[in-house]
Amino acid sequence: MAKSVSDSLNGHTLDRLMNYYHCLRNYSANEQEGVISSTQLARMLSLDDSQIRKDLAAIGVKGLCHVGFGVDQVMQTIGQVTGIAHRHPAVVIGAGRLGGALASYAGFAEYGLAVVALFDHDPAKIGLTIGGHVVQPLDQLERILKNAHVRLAILTLPADAAQQAALRLVNAGVKVLWNFSPARLNLPPAVFVRHEQLFVGLGQLFYHLHRSHSS
Amino acid sequence: MAKSVSDSLNGHTLDRLMNYYHCLRNYSANEQEGVISSTQLARMLSLDDSQIRKDLAAIGVKGLCHVGFGVDQVMQTIGQVTGIAHRHPAVVIGAGRLGGALASYAGFAEYGLAVVALFDHDPAKIGLTIGGHVVQPLDQLERILKNAHVRLAILTLPADAAQQAALRLVNAGVKVLWNFSPARLNLPPAVFVRHEQLFVGLGQLFYHLHRSHSS
Repeated sequence: MAKSVSDSLNGHTLDRLMNYYHCLRNYSANEQEGVISSTQLARMLSLDDSQIRKDLAAIGVKGLCHVGFGVDQVMQTIGQVTGIAHRHPAVVIGAGRLGGALASYAGFAEYGLAVVALFDHDPAKIGLTIGGHVVQPLDQLERILKNAHVRLAILTLPADAAQQAALRLVNAGVKVLWNFSPARLNLPPAVFVRHEQLFVGLGQLFYHLHRSHSS
Repeated sequence: MAKSVSDSLNGHTLDRLMNYYHCLRNYSANEQEGVISSTQLARMLSLDDSQIRKDLAAIGVKGLCHVGFGVDQVMQTIGQVTGIAHRHPAVVIGAGRLGGALASYAGFAEYGLAVVALFDHDPAKIGLTIGGHVVQPLDQLERILKNAHVRLAILTLPADAAQQAALRLVNAGVKVLWNFSPARLNLPPAVFVRHEQLFVGLGQLFYHLHRSHSS
């Protein structure tokens, strides 16, 4: 990863680059085209094409006048800058419905995320096979994290169990946590936590459904 | 749903109420307790307890001094105000990996979301059973939406197919779209769209992983 480039990217730019990559992956798979114009990409994402040219210039991708951008070159550069071109081993903690869905979601592998193990503290779940992973007991955590060089964990435990598990993960070398639990985690500032909650969106969806009904 | 209350809630308050509900559901299932103090709830969510008391007061829930809030009463009121206490039929468009995971995620049912059908335009997928749903062709969309009174759709198609499908959904009566595709949709302003993209988060996770490694 080019440190001088990637260190200057903020979260919004990173999010847009991920969207470009995702869009081009589908475009490339469906159309077998070698080039795309910023106008075409802008139309697909409902973005301004000057924003796209600026973002791509920031990571060193140059387009050809009246031709466009090489799809492979854009995807390779975004892959390097964001890190999705590399394989990042991760573990999923919590083999409930959401944990199982995330552990078995093969689509993540195409974005550099490799789930290597699934854990739970519930004896009834340990030993079950979910999405190709045998559910492991938490007492295997330190050993598996060390052997697989894992520094990224996906947390799907209930709120009351999440903080304790997160501390245990951090003590075992985890630096980045993708938190799907409702708990706000209290962790050392060097640990990056991304808080993701699917069910929370339902409140706003139903609220607008009700408003559309009553209007 | 109490119109006078719910109409005055903004998106942030709705998100917090969903978190309280989720936290209490786990608390109630695990602990079999009848009451909870705002301090306990605040500790579980790493929030200020005065924020919790304010949010609950706004939806008309009163705590008892030195006792706390009745867990059932809080959950019932939040369920009514947000709409999660009711059943909202929804369809999933796109039977790929993510669409299949969302359609089969039984956890949503506990928050009022009932997936009634799963659609795809790929003949290879039509007729497969995924998460208990037989994948339907898109030409059955209007019939199934009408019969099941569906006004909420979850969109997981690639960017190039999403806009056309979204318009078709809106023409068939859909008022609220949960958009997991990378496309920014161009729809009538009366339609509410919530844009949700799991894979986008990976860019920021890997970026911070790289920084933690190089520091």
